[in-house]
Parts: sequence; C-alpha cells; structure tokens
Amino acid sequence: MPVGTQATVKGITPDQLAAFGSRIILGNTYHLTLRPGDALIAELGGLHRFMSWNGPILTDSGGYQVFSLADVRKITDAGATFKSHIDGKILDLTPERAVEIQQNLGSDIAMVLDECPPAKAPDAVMQAAVDRSIRWAERCKAAHTRKDQAQFAIIQGGLDIKLRQRCAEALVAMDFPGYAQGGFSVGESPEEMAAALPECVDVMPTHKPRYLMGVGRPQDLLAGVASGIDMFDCVMPTRNGRNAMAFTNSGPVRLRNAQHRRDPAPLASDCACYTCQHFSRAYLHHLFHVEEMLGPTLVSLHNLAFYLDLMARTRSAIAAGRFAEFHADCLARWSGNA
Amino acid sequence: MPVGTQATVKGITPDQLAAFGSRIILGNTYHLTLRPGDALIAELGGLHRFMSWNGPILTDSGGYQVFSLADVRKITDAGATFKSHIDGKILDLTPERAVEIQQNLGSDIAMVLDECPPAKAPDAVMQAAVDRSIRWAERCKAAHTRKDQAQFAIIQGGLDIKLRQRCAEALVAMDFPGYAQGGFSVGESPEEMAAALPECVDVMPTHKPRYLMGVGRPQDLLAGVASGIDMFDCVMPTRNGRNAMAFTNSGPVRLRNAQHRRDPAPLASDCACYTCQHFSRAYLHHLFHVEEMLGPTLVSLHNLAFYLDLMARTRSAIAAGRFAEFHADCLARWSGNA
Ligand SMILES: [Zn+2]
Ligand SMILES: [Zn+2]
Repeated sequence: MPVGTQATVKGITPDQLAAFGSRIILGNTYHLTLRPGDALIAELGGLHRFMSWNGPILTDSGGYQVFSLADVRKITDAGATFKSHIDGKILDLTPERAVEIQQNLGSDIAMVLDECPPAKAPDAVMQAAVDRSIRWAERCKAAHTRKDQAQFAIIQGGLDIKLRQRCAEALVAMDFPGYAQGGFSVGESPEEMAAALPECVDVMPTHKPRYLMGVGRPQDLLAGVASGIDMFDCVMPTRNGRNAMAFTNSGPVRLRNAQHRRDPAPLASDCACYTCQHFSRAYLHHLFHVEEMLGPTLVSLHNLAFYLDLMARTRSAIAAGRFAEFHADCLARWSGNA
Repeated sequence: MPVGTQATVKGITPDQLAAFGSRIILGNTYHLTLRPGDALIAELGGLHRFMSWNGPILTDSGGYQVFSLADVRKITDAGATFKSHIDGKILDLTPERAVEIQQNLGSDIAMVLDECPPAKAPDAVMQAAVDRSIRWAERCKAAHTRKDQAQFAIIQGGLDIKLRQRCAEALVAMDFPGYAQGGFSVGESPEEMAAALPECVDVMPTHKPRYLMGVGRPQDLLAGVASGIDMFDCVMPTRNGRNAMAFTNSGPVRLRNAQHRRDPAPLASDCACYTCQHFSRAYLHHLFHVEEMLGPTLVSLHNLAFYLDLMARTRSAIAAGRFAEFHADCLARWSGNA
C-alpha cells in the first residue's frame, strides 16, 4: 500500500497512482485528525472524496504516530494524552476516539488502537503494553459501528514470540476480519524481524488478511511473504524517491551520483513505468541537481511502480508454485549476485 | 507558452502538459547552459528528447537572464561577460555563442541575443542598447545554420515608440521569420505597456508571428492580443500556482485564505482541468496548509489550463469577429463587475 499520510501520496496525483496499478492506499489517522481534522473530512464527504481516491483506503489508528512523533504526556488504561507535534496542543487518544476518527474518515479498513513500545523495551513494559493493547482492541470493537468499514486488530509483543502468540490468541478469540503484526521496524534489525516473523505469523488465521505494518525494504517484504504475510505499507518508495534513491531489480540507484550525469539509459530498462518509459538517468540526475520538484515526483512514481510490480510478480510466483525460487532469485539480483 | 526554465515546467509532467492542450513550451538558454550544459543536452539528443517533450520548444537567447540574474561584469559590442548566479564562474555570452547554445538545445524557435536595459534607462543608454541589439541580431542571423530551427528577432527600445519603430525597421529589413517585442515587463507599469503596445506592434509584419516576451497577467495578454500579438510566455501560471494563487474567470483566488477551509466547491466551476474536476478548494487549502507538494502541482496545472483555455477562447472570439466584446466581458468578470 502506498502511504498517503496527509491525504496525498506525496507528489503523486490519484490518476498517476491508478495508472501504475495502485489499488489500496494508507492514510494516517494521527496526521489527518490534527490537520485538517476528521470532522471536517467527514463534513466534506469522507477521505475518499476529499482526496479523490476511488479505491480502498486503510487507516492506521494513530497509536504508532502518537508514540513516535508526539510528546506523550500520560498513558493510562483510558488512553494516551499527548502534545501535538504541530502546535503543541494537548490532545487525548482513547480507543473510542481512534474508532470515531476512522469512522469519520470513512476508510474501508480501520485499525484498533494499540500501544507500541520500542522493540527492546524491558519485558515488563512489553507485557503491560500487550495486555493494554488487548483491552483496547476489545473497546475498539465495542465502539465500532460502521458496517461499510472492516476493523483489523494489531498483534504486539516485540521480539518475544511467546508474548506475540499470547496476544494473537486473545485477539483471534474476538473474531476480527483481519489481523496485523505491529511493532516491527521499531528498532530491531531486519534479521531479528525475519527470524521472529514465521512463528508470529503462524498463529494468525490463514483465511483472513495478514498485514505487516510499516515494513519495509523490498527484501523485507519478501521475507514477510515467505512467512505468510499478505499486506504491507511503507513510506520507503516515496521517501527514498524524494531523496533521489531508486529501487531497481539490480539494486538501489542513487541518482545524485555524478556517474549518472551523462547516462542516456532509463532508471530501469525492465520497468514499464512512466518515468522509465520517458526519461534518462541523466535527466533525473539533472532534476535533483537543480532541485526541481519533478525529480521527487518521477522517482517516487518509479519506486511505487517497482513495489507494486514486485508484489504482482510475487503473487504470480505463488500462484505458479515457484515462490521460493523467485525469492532466491530476487535476493541474488538485488545484491548483485545474479 | 508554459515556461520550462530548467527543462521542466515546474511540478508538471509532459503528459499532464499535453493533456490540457499545451502545444509549445519555452526553455531558458541561460539556465540550461549553466546546468546541465547545452553540450550535454546535445549529446543526449537535444532538449526535446532530454525532457521528453514532443511538441515545439522556443528558447530565449539568455540575454534577459544574464541582465536580470547574473552579475554582469562587462558588456561590449563583442558580448556580455558575467558571473554565474549558481557558482560564480565567469562566462561569456556573445551573439555567436547564444546561437550555438540554442542550436545545441535544438529548439524549434530560437531568439537572437539582445541587450535589455531597464524600462526607464536614460535615452542614451536605451539608444545604444537598440543599436547594439540590431548589430547582434545581424551576427546571430549570420551564425545561424540549423535549417530545422526558426530564428526570431527581438525589438527593443523601452517605452520610446520612435526608437522601437526604428529598431523594428532595421530588423524587418533583415527578414527574420518572426519578431518579438522584448523589454516589456521590466519595470514599467502595465498601463504604460498597454499604451505603448499598439504603435509598437503596428510596425511588425502581420504575416509573421508576433511575440510579446515575458508577459503577463491575463489582462495583459488580452491587451497584447488587442494590439496584434500572437504569442506569449509567462511564468505567472506556475509561479503563482506554487504560491497558492489561482486564476479564475471570477478573478484571482488565494487558496491559503481561511475562507476556503471548508469549501467543497472546485477552484473554478467552469473549468475542465484535472484539478477542478477532482478536488475541492478545501482540499487544495489543506495541501498548502500542510505543505504538501501536490498543492503547487495541482494549482499550477489549473493555472496553465486557465491560460491555455483563455487563449483558445480568444482565438475563437477573433475567428467569430467578436474579440472586442469578449475582451470587455473578460475584464468585467475579472474585476468582479460582470
Ligand atoms: Zn520505472
Ligand atoms: Zn481548473
């Protein structure tokens, strides 16, 4: 899922998003409730209409951003009290408020409010966070009324597999229509995540969507798929795109490098995206060199197309029963060993 | 003509440009020779291919930018010696070099090098600049060899109509395929320009394109057309677009204003552009408020579409013999007196 934090995938129009096959995008509850406000978006017909996106939208619960961006003043069973990173205003985020915001936004998939400690928080902190996340999930489910919106639960527990399994069992007993692994990509190494993931995913129901939140690099997505994950969201395609870093099947390309100054080749010769079909590396290098906004747009566009194409090829490989081979082949190519 | 200073119309892809009917765009010789360099663009197949624009391109001569952006160290009959505004490098721009650069860029229409003093320079300065511009035009014509490129001459003379007429006569005698009025919008008032324009345009051959450089607001374009001008270029649609200022048939709209915060209406209800067909003023206000790059893109896109549509409606009005009525109607609408 491309990430549209503030009701826009940065630098990309909805038409461009649809053109390279995006189907579902993510919006950030925390950012949208601060600006322009969920009540205003509801008044204007909901998030789809506001940002002119006709496909599905998933919204997170705001919990992760509150814990990572805002200055949290107090966290109790009732909810979190935090200071907005925009204007310092003191605000509350309770499970019920997280549900209300997302119902106002009118996303197709909403997430429950969870507590997300750093990956290496002490055991006692992690266990308390899991217990609280379970209680909050229950309250979110009780508060949820929109029939046109699915509500997914979030499994926490850091790198403690037993704890994640306990959390998953409690949430599965509540019968949500989909489940996510949260609290990865929050300080642990990619190797630690890859090692923990298979056992964590094993306890998620296989007949419901399994979503790995906020992950990650192309190799992390394939590790997730290998463990059984179905859905991902990540800001890397657009964030790296804005910084002139492109993903390709031959590994990352840094377009600011002087080696691209005279290069007439496209960013990726095997890519069908608008950027690769029309522009040279030399042109993209030039755009970043002179700080033209078309540079971030064109490279973000390529990166999003690369991620979506990677997932399309992954689905084909799974359907053809050759995912393991595809996975190994991708890893070899990306590391320059193909 | 939309302006693509650095081989890109800021924030707009060539596909988007083509979608709202752009046919010819402008590139800036001064900027392109500094970065990435005209020799490099030639090596990469010329400016059309470099920026992936299949329609016609007009390039200016670089003269205006040298006089307005760079620190001019010396100007003699040979040419101008100036300090780059990018890296302080000392460079020369002679008539022959201006032709060479534009032949390297491979634009469809190239402009001769001219000297462009401020609108209110003393008479002696203005006369010397006109004499020099005539001599430089002659040298540009002699140096020009590309058969697939038309070279237009530039009439100077400030607000001194007699001087402009003398300049025009000398250039017309050299038989260029098109003529421009340069040195407007360089310090004089729009009223002074509108007053001087008819007599200045009267001496331009009517069977060749008549181009007014660097002008201007919608009302200035119509004043130009009323005087007989056929071609314009201006950065206002994109520059104002980046600053949240939109042109509409009801006058300018400033999208940062709080009055647009809850407004579900499009920017212009009579506009067929992508922005107006998909987004509300409230959404555009939000994008500028949270500093999302899609805001400048969407409003630039609308403004360019507005200018192109204005020119299309102007051509229809002329063809139907009702330009004077159309002109008066536009001015009344824009000032809120319709
Ligand atoms: Zn591509
Ligand atoms: Zn419009």
